[in-house]
Amino acid sequence: MILIPFPEMIPLAAKIASHLGTVSRPLDWHHFPDGESLVTIPNGLSGEDVAIVATLRDPDTLALPLRFAAATAREMGAHHVGLIAPYLGYMRQDHRFHAGQSVSAILFSDFLSESFEWLVTVDPHLHRISSLGDVFRIPAKRVTTAPLLAEWISKNVPDGVLLGPDSESQQWVGEVARLADRPFEVLKKHRTGDRSVDVSMPKSAALRHGTPVILDDIASSGQTMVRAIEQLLAAGTGQPICLIIHGIFAGNALENLSSAGALRVVTTDTVPHPTNVIGVAPLIAHAIREIAPSATLGEGRRHANERKGE
Amino acid sequence: MILIPFPEMIPLAAKIASHLGTVSRPLDWHHFPDGESLVTIPNGLSGEDVAIVATLRDPDTLALPLRFAAATAREMGAHHVGLIAPYLGYMRQDHRFHAGQSVSAILFSDFLSESFEWLVTVDPHLHRISSLGDVFRIPAKRVTTAPLLAEWISKNVPDGVLLGPDSESQQWVGEVARLADRPFEVLKKHRTGDRSVDVSMPKSAALRHGTPVILDDIASSGQTMVRAIEQLLAAGTGQPICLIIHGIFAGNALENLSSAGALRVVTTDTVPHPTNVIGVAPLIAHAIREIAPSATLGEGRRHANERKGE
Repeated sequence: MILIPFPEMIPLAAKIASHLGTVSRPLDWHHFPDGESLVTIPNGLSGEDVAIVATLRDPDTLALPLRFAAATAREMGAHHVGLIAPYLGYMRQDHRFHAGQSVSAILFSDFLSESFEWLVTVDPHLHRISSLGDVFRIPAKRVTTAPLLAEWISKNVPDGVLLGPDSESQQWVGEVARLADRPFEVLKKHRTGDRSVDVSMPKSAALRHGTPVILDDIASSGQTMVRAIEQLLAAGTGQPICLIIHGIFAGNALENLSSAGALRVVTTDTVPHPTNVIGVAPLIAHAIREIAPSATLGEGRRHANERKGE
Repeated sequence: MILIPFPEMIPLAAKIASHLGTVSRPLDWHHFPDGESLVTIPNGLSGEDVAIVATLRDPDTLALPLRFAAATAREMGAHHVGLIAPYLGYMRQDHRFHAGQSVSAILFSDFLSESFEWLVTVDPHLHRISSLGDVFRIPAKRVTTAPLLAEWISKNVPDGVLLGPDSESQQWVGEVARLADRPFEVLKKHRTGDRSVDVSMPKSAALRHGTPVILDDIASSGQTMVRAIEQLLAAGTGQPICLIIHGIFAGNALENLSSAGALRVVTTDTVPHPTNVIGVAPLIAHAIREIAPSATLGEGRRHANERKGE
């Protein structure tokens, strides 16, 4: 297998390739002044299995280049073409709240299923959709970072008290708290706009006896986390640590977390960012070995040759 | 038929609808801070034929919203779903110049063919691809603006001498010159980068006896036209008029045309812009009547009722 990362994924792809004992060869993504893209994939794909590596923040911008890369890899002779998407966009749009609204989670999954034969992603935001298999027509594997997050808390914040900023974070917070053997609480959120939310006051007495760790899967505008920080500080806790799986950080989100009083912001490397501390490459490599037809270099080709020799 | 324009196409769609005697009801395109889109289509599409109206400048950004709109229209009960794309992007990428390059013109046509049942567009940039039917698997109709451009020249620049800035413009310039019964010349272009080109000196003596009109199908970076203006002025002609079918005008393209010495810049309204002077709505309406299963309001539904009464 050959990994073909989009430019920003070159560092993570190199780590995944190292765990798999294979190679990573980036594609070139040229942007024309008129908003069109020219994607050029590396040479030497004939007969190889490949995996495109792209983190799907800004999915609108990435959609056509992803499709072009997959189609061109096949035209150049690639055998199987999979997708490693450490962050999988559009999963939050999983319901038609008003007539005429697009249910983008399903339509986006359909779109990816057309171009790729398998998918590996990290902690997708599944809320009303219970599993990736409900929306993807291709084998799709979900890597969970809970053990890595729990390990990080145990090592770095042994007195950590976990806090979920809203009910959708319950699934992440409950599991990490269990693995780290630490107490947790989940706040209630009321969203009033894309960038405006309110959250309830924390109630737990445990918060006064430890370092609060606010945990969420995605920080985009960061407003949910900002409100949680404000409520914690108003309740008299110490400055909280923000632990985020996918640090999207649109606009000034990161600056807003600091201004609100975050002691530290820690993310995994699913979305490249200076706050990346927790590496997901070993977990992704493990998932690829389970899902992909031939995960290591040349296996596809060797297999083909063996078949010919039968 | 109901026209469903993307926001920037609302004025043109209203004109097309008026020519067809039907209605235009815009969709809503909401942008989330993380780069995702939420598309909401209008109510009341059940059993209707619809046409999405979108001009495909910045096609990467529009691709998923287009697909979401078409799929959601079908989910809401629309019968046939077509696409009116006054400007059709990606047609310039029609050849693999190096191994591994995506032939985006074909891949983009495939992408659109999956979502729409028919296409109407205006003067697509077909160079190595000889007709839309070679790349689209759906009925695709090409509207030509040559008669409108010739009429505009005859009325507004009766002493116009036409100039094509490069060999790819020959097809537009030759036809418009013929229809307007005016002389023309085509310059030679050497492109050295996305934003840098050289063009040859004009040779025609006719240029000294009339107003030069530089004609091209697309102005994106505008550099091809800027070089042509410079060569004309160096050859001692009067200030030229720039006549452009699709005014993309990336970055400072328009300012650069003025600074180089353009007397006036005139475009059609395929891409909304203050320079729009020539309206394409009647031509598009005519093409829709020829290609779409039922072009006027309620025809699809009436037809369905007649069938029930058979």
